[in-house]
Amino acid sequence: MRLNHTEVVSADEIEAIHEASLTILERIGMEFLCPEARSIMNEVGADIDEASGRVRFPRELVISSVAKAPSEFTLHSWNPDHDLQIGGRWLAYGTVGSAPHYIDRDGVRRTGDRNAFRDLLKLAQSLNTVHFIGGYPYSLGRQRNRDVLEMARIARGIDEHTLLHEPSVFSVVNSNSPLRLDTPMSQGMIEFARHNQPIVMTPFTLAGAMAPITLAGALAQQNAEALAGITFLQCVNAGTPVVYGGFTSNVDMQSGAPAFGTPEYVRTAMIGGQLARHYALPYRSSNVCAANALDAQAAYESVFSLWGCVMGGVNFMMHGAGWMEGGLHASLEKMVLDADLLQMVTQIMEPVIVDVDTLAIDTIESVGPGGHFFGTQHTQDRFRNAFYKPLISDWRNYETWQEAGSPQAPDRAKLLAARFLDAYEPPPMDPAIRAELDAFVARRVAEGGVPTDY
Amino acid sequence: MRLNHTEVVSADEIEAIHEASLTILERIGMEFLCPEARSIMNEVGADIDEASGRVRFPRELVISSVAKAPSEFTLHSWNPDHDLQIGGRWLAYGTVGSAPHYIDRDGVRRTGDRNAFRDLLKLAQSLNTVHFIGGYPYSLGRQRNRDVLEMARIARGIDEHTLLHEPSVFSVVNSNSPLRLDTPMSQGMIEFARHNQPIVMTPFTLAGAMAPITLAGALAQQNAEALAGITFLQCVNAGTPVVYGGFTSNVDMQSGAPAFGTPEYVRTAMIGGQLARHYALPYRSSNVCAANALDAQAAYESVFSLWGCVMGGVNFMMHGAGWMEGGLHASLEKMVLDADLLQMVTQIMEPVIVDVDTLAIDTIESVGPGGHFFGTQHTQDRFRNAFYKPLISDWRNYETWQEAGSPQAPDRAKLLAARFLDAYEPPPMDPAIRAELDAFVARRVAEGGVPTDY
Repeated sequence: MRLNHTEVVSADEIEAIHEASLTILERIGMEFLCPEARSIMNEVGADIDEASGRVRFPRELVISSVAKAPSEFTLHSWNPDHDLQIGGRWLAYGTVGSAPHYIDRDGVRRTGDRNAFRDLLKLAQSLNTVHFIGGYPYSLGRQRNRDVLEMARIARGIDEHTLLHEPSVFSVVNSNSPLRLDTPMSQGMIEFARHNQPIVMTPFTLAGAMAPITLAGALAQQNAEALAGITFLQCVNAGTPVVYGGFTSNVDMQSGAPAFGTPEYVRTAMIGGQLARHYALPYRSSNVCAANALDAQAAYESVFSLWGCVMGGVNFMMHGAGWMEGGLHASLEKMVLDADLLQMVTQIMEPVIVDVDTLAIDTIESVGPGGHFFGTQHTQDRFRNAFYKPLISDWRNYETWQEAGSPQAPDRAKLLAARFLDAYEPPPMDPAIRAELDAFVARRVAEGGVPTDY
Repeated sequence: MRLNHTEVVSADEIEAIHEASLTILERIGMEFLCPEARSIMNEVGADIDEASGRVRFPRELVISSVAKAPSEFTLHSWNPDHDLQIGGRWLAYGTVGSAPHYIDRDGVRRTGDRNAFRDLLKLAQSLNTVHFIGGYPYSLGRQRNRDVLEMARIARGIDEHTLLHEPSVFSVVNSNSPLRLDTPMSQGMIEFARHNQPIVMTPFTLAGAMAPITLAGALAQQNAEALAGITFLQCVNAGTPVVYGGFTSNVDMQSGAPAFGTPEYVRTAMIGGQLARHYALPYRSSNVCAANALDAQAAYESVFSLWGCVMGGVNFMMHGAGWMEGGLHASLEKMVLDADLLQMVTQIMEPVIVDVDTLAIDTIESVGPGGHFFGTQHTQDRFRNAFYKPLISDWRNYETWQEAGSPQAPDRAKLLAARFLDAYEPPPMDPAIRAELDAFVARRVAEGGVPTDY
C-alpha cells in the first residue's frame, strides 16, 4: 500500500468508538458459550456469569491484552517463495471462502462439492495475483484444527517446535453478532493460539440486523467483538498473531437482504482500517458484492468494496477473488474478473517515477507541436511493459467488436477460466512429503475423522 | 469532498513536474495557430515565431498569469437554486459531452442527432445528481460563442454588465496535443475570457500517442499545455475563471486504441488533482470507460475512473453520466447507471456521525447477546433513510431473482431511462424569457447562423 490512507472520521471519533467498545465489553460483556473459554477468562480477571455465559472485560485487561498482539507477522507457505508478510503496508489477496454454492465453468449454479472446491483451488493456483486461499477458513472444533495444523507441519517439512514459531495456516473466526462467541469457534481459537497460528477475528455486524442501524454503533459493536476475541486469544497465548477483521455492511431495510459494496460498506471498511491502525494490528477486509449475475452491478459493487478496503488500508483481503451473491456462491468467472481488478489495484500502487528520463522533455522537443510519440526511441524502449495489460477489458473498436459477436466481460472471463483449468498443472511437491500427507489423511479417515454435531 | 485527497507523488515530484512544464513552455513553446492569439501573447512579452506560429513563454509570465485565476467561482444557472460552486472542496457532476454516436432507449446504437441530444437533456433534467450538462461543450469560433453568451444572458434575465461579473456558461478547450492550440478554440477562448466566462482547459494527452509513454512525461506535457492555455486566458482578461483540466490516459500499445479507467488513468487523475491544488485552481477530471457494452467492464472502468478523479479531488466532473466506448457513444442506460454510481460517491462523502445516539450503547445493551436489532426503537426511528437506496442494484435472493427472469443491470437501467423520459416535464420558464430566447434564435437562423469551415 503505497498511497496515503483515507481517513473518514477524526482521531477523536476513533477514540470515541474505542471508548464505546470498552464500555460495551465492561458493562454488557460478551456471551462465551464455551466453558473452557470462560474459565480462561476467569483466570485473567474477567467478570464471569456462569449462568448466562456472560464475560465482562475490565478495560485495562482489553488494552493490555490487545497490545500484546504483533503488528506484523510472516505467514509461511510450504513454498518459501510464497511466504506472506501480513500487516504494515503489505497487502495480500485471498480467494472467496465458504460459499455454499458455485457457478461452474459452464456458468451453471449448483451446490458446492469437493470437485467444485478443487476447481477453485486449481484456478487460484493459476492466478499469480492470488496470494492465499480463502477456502473454508473457519476453525471449528478442536480435533479438526489439530489435524489442519499437523497437515501444515507435514506440508512444510518442519518439526512441531518450528511450527510453534512460524505461523503457517490462518483461520477466520466470526463472532455470532451481537456479542456471542460459540463453542466450536472458541475451541478452534484456543487450538490455534496455543500453536501460535494466526486468527482473523471478524465480527459479522450487518447494520440494521445484527448490529445497530447507525454506522458508528455497528462499528462500536464490531470493535467490541473484535477486541473481545483478540483479548481472549492473547490470554490463551500472549503474542499470538491476530488480524483485526472488519466486515460491517448494511442490510436492505425493506427485505432484510444483506448488501455489499454500498456507500455504507465503503465507509465502514475505511473506518475499520483506522481502528486497526489505532491498535497497530493487521487489518482484514473483503472484496464483496451482492449481485446474482456477473453484470455491471457485480463489477461496481466489487470495485466500490475495493475502494473502501484498499484506501482503508487492508492487509489481508478475504474474498478477494470469486465472491458473488453476498457470499452464497463462488464463481470461476468472477474469480478471473477479480484477478484483473486486483492486478489493477496492484498496478495503481506502482510508483510513478518522476526523473529526467520519465519527464521526457527532450522527446517532447523532438516530437514538437502536432507530432506523435509512437515512433520515438523513448516509446520504443518502453512500449512492451509501459501499461497494464488487462485480462478482461475489450478495447477493440465497436465495429470489430460487433463482428466478433459483441462479447461481454463474462464471456471472456468464462473462456479464460476454462483455459486456466485445462492448462492446470499441480505445483511440484517433494514426493516424501506428499506420501507423508497421504498417509496422515488415510490414517485419520480410517480413524473416523472428526465427528461433528454442528 | 469530505475525505482527504490521495497523493500519488510527493511535493518534490509535483515541483519537478511543474518545473519540467515551465521548461517545455520556455524552450519548446506551444504552437498557436490563431494570429490574434499570438498577437495577444506578443504584447505581454512572450517570444513569438510568426513563421512557425510558435509561442515561447517566459517562466515568470506563466507563474504570474496563473496566479491571477480565481481558485473558486460560482457558475450561475438561470434557476438560482441550481447555481454551482466550482473549486475548493465542491464536487459538480456533468453529463457526457460531444459523443458522435448514441445508444437510444431501445439499446440501438446510431449516429447522434438533435432528437438524441434532446433525450439526453431530458434525462439529465430528470436526474437530481446531474449538476450540469456536458452536451457539446467546445467553444469553436467567435460568433458561435457570442450567440451562446447572448442566450445565456437572456435565459438568466440579466443585463450585459451583470453577465460580465457572473459566470453563466462554461466551455471546454482541448489543446491539440502535443503543444498546439487551433484557431476556433483560441477564438472561443478570447470571447469567453473577455466576457469573464469560465474555460475548462484540458489537454488531450494520451500517453504513448499524443504524449510521452511515461506518465510523468505525459503529465508534464498536460501541465505545460494547461498552463499555456490558462496563461493565455489571463492575458486576455486577468482574473477570468478557469478550470485546470486533466485527461491523461494511455493507449493500448498493440492497437493504438485509447484506454480509460486503467491503473494509469487512476494515477494520472490523482496527480492531476495534486497539480491543480499546486496552482490553487479548480480541477476537472472525468468518469470514463472504453467498454462497448454496459457490462462488467463498463462498470469497473467507470468506478476506477471515479476512484481516481474523486480521490484526486475533482471539482468539475465532465462525462460524469452517460459516457461509453471511449467517448464515441453516449448512452441513456449508462447515464442512469452512472447516476447511481455518482449518488453512491455522494453518499460516501456523507459524514459518519459519532455521538451518544449513534454509538447506541444502550440499544446494544437492550438487544443483548444473540438478539437482533430490527425491532428496536433505535432502528424504527431511522430505518427509512438509514442507508443508500440504489437505482440499479438488485438485492433479491437468487430464486426470486431467477423467477423474475434473471434481469441484469442494463435491463433495469433501460427500464428506468424510458420511465424518466416518459415522465419528463420541462422545467418551468418565464414565458417572456422563453419568447425572447425564441425570437433570438429565429433571428439568428434567419441571418444564416454561423458559417463554419471546420
